[in-house]
Amino acid sequence: MPEWRKDPVVDRWVIIATERAKRPHDFRCPPDQLNSGDCPLCVGNEDKTPPEVLAFRDADSPANQPGWWIRVVPNKFPAVLPNEGYYAWQDGIYEAMNGIGVHEVIVESTDHEPDLVNQSDRQVEEVLWAWRARLLDLRHDTRLKYIQIFKNKGRTGGASLEHTHSQLIAIPMVPADVAEELAGLHEYRRHRNTCAYCDVVHQELSGRDRVVRESGRFVCLVPFAARYPFEMWILPKEHQADFGQIGEDDIRDLAPVLREALLRLSEAVCRPPYNLVLHTSPINVGGELFYHWHFEIMPRLTITAGYELGTGYFINPTPPELAAEALRDALEGAVPPPHAYTIPEEVPKHV
Amino acid sequence: MPEWRKDPVVDRWVIIATERAKRPHDFRCPPDQLNSGDCPLCVGNEDKTPPEVLAFRDADSPANQPGWWIRVVPNKFPAVLPNEGYYAWQDGIYEAMNGIGVHEVIVESTDHEPDLVNQSDRQVEEVLWAWRARLLDLRHDTRLKYIQIFKNKGRTGGASLEHTHSQLIAIPMVPADVAEELAGLHEYRRHRNTCAYCDVVHQELSGRDRVVRESGRFVCLVPFAARYPFEMWILPKEHQADFGQIGEDDIRDLAPVLREALLRLSEAVCRPPYNLVLHTSPINVGGELFYHWHFEIMPRLTITAGYELGTGYFINPTPPELAAEALRDALEGAVPPPHAYTIPEEVPKHV
Repeated sequence: MPEWRKDPVVDRWVIIATERAKRPHDFRCPPDQLNSGDCPLCVGNEDKTPPEVLAFRDADSPANQPGWWIRVVPNKFPAVLPNEGYYAWQDGIYEAMNGIGVHEVIVESTDHEPDLVNQSDRQVEEVLWAWRARLLDLRHDTRLKYIQIFKNKGRTGGASLEHTHSQLIAIPMVPADVAEELAGLHEYRRHRNTCAYCDVVHQELSGRDRVVRESGRFVCLVPFAARYPFEMWILPKEHQADFGQIGEDDIRDLAPVLREALLRLSEAVCRPPYNLVLHTSPINVGGELFYHWHFEIMPRLTITAGYELGTGYFINPTPPELAAEALRDALEGAVPPPHAYTIPEEVPKHV
Repeated sequence: MPEWRKDPVVDRWVIIATERAKRPHDFRCPPDQLNSGDCPLCVGNEDKTPPEVLAFRDADSPANQPGWWIRVVPNKFPAVLPNEGYYAWQDGIYEAMNGIGVHEVIVESTDHEPDLVNQSDRQVEEVLWAWRARLLDLRHDTRLKYIQIFKNKGRTGGASLEHTHSQLIAIPMVPADVAEELAGLHEYRRHRNTCAYCDVVHQELSGRDRVVRESGRFVCLVPFAARYPFEMWILPKEHQADFGQIGEDDIRDLAPVLREALLRLSEAVCRPPYNLVLHTSPINVGGELFYHWHFEIMPRLTITAGYELGTGYFINPTPPELAAEALRDALEGAVPPPHAYTIPEEVPKHV
């Protein structure tokens, strides 16, 4: 049974992930390559994953069989488990509780493609619908306080499967980084009575030094205090607390912005590994309206090392304005992505 | 000129490190190997580094020539610079200031050895004296509020030079992670009137499940909520706020504990890359007495990815008690380290 443990000094809950337990010898010969043969996420291999919790599929196709274009399944080696009970305990100064939570995999394509950039905008829309659907469904479990949706690309980015996929870990607390953002947003609002991220959008669109792309509803930019070279954020221009609130028009506008951001990154710098992280409002805790959801794209071009691990601060060797310029220019001459998959014209409405 | 930039929402200051500026093409062909030929840290290559700021050397040897056994030099590609002026500015909602700070390299051996574990205890003592000396010297610059001493081992650990060395970055603010620890310690003290880390030491020494090694003055343990497989902390058993306060007896006791911890890690799991980080009290801010300095050794066996980057929380697949057991057993049958370097019998006292 996995276990949540809290550091006795700081707000840092660690999952002791017994379901993926690693003993010393597991580290002796670290694998060098991502597996690519016999991929459990490929179409036709539906029996190699736990049964699907959600799939967008042809109306007449049975569950856990081909006929899907997006499939969400529980992680086979979950870091946390949605078991029944909830109990917490103390051992002297220490706090722990059983490792409840939800860990799912969102399969973003039927074919063994390594990245979202090779999908059509239409397929990326479907990925966004799937993320939204899981966000809305999982909040009914009121033990859960936050749903972290993320995508690890490349082995250095933490991926263990090559087939394009994202993950979701829903946890019974508001994580430290989100709590800190919320505290910062409240403090900002107390002083200025506005949302800090709304003000970021406003100021960036006035200056444009760090804007990579603007669409009708979204802006993709390099943040002022970017931690990583070529880091990008995508924010809704209008205040929107919760990714679960996005509608059909938002999704149609957002998909090309997201896909293009990843494509720009690929073109600007040698297809780097990256992490894509959705920051959205906590659930089941109240006060969610003040958040402003956004994506953070963190390329893994530099190594986070002793300085960062000791301080929580970062060294970024690429000035954000320079990165933004390179990312703006990256698509000149780029080949448009293939539209490899055909989603039926008549897709069931997800709204 | 490097620049400090603050995230407008959270306490996250980023160094935009223009002295090590990387343009897009710098990332196109990432180097695969650490340089090993023509090493600027090897004895005889003293002219390949900036002039030394500290060296432990034979009494009659001139500066920046052979004759040293420990040498501290400014980083050739500093993330921050100790220039004269200090100015901060605002641009709308953003805050920044010029990138003042100090970035130094501590050369831990004359020879091209890749790790501290191959040094003698005597040599490790000298490294500890050097860290202490820099901590005590740099605090005279009252602009500086924290001195981060750290060691990156292996390319995946962030090292760009193979020759065993550590680094120091002194910065003009108390970093977020240390501020959070201090806040946690204050909160703990407010409730229980004791130091949380003193209580950690006490409880661990009573239980011993997670103790790796105890010496007269120090304990090496796997923390209860370890973030990384085989993470270890080394803490003084008696309360001591500031690494700058350690004396000769402490250092003689500490050196073998530190060297052995790294050796145990090497033996238990395939010589992994790691980061060693010194957590010590801030300087020039007051209230330092409540800190409890310690080392954190973070092996890089797993990849910190989307979940960790989004939440600030961690997934650790190795139960701390299992890791501690493996680390305790690791030295059975291990070969004692060579004592490769001869430090003069009559070393000038550092105290």
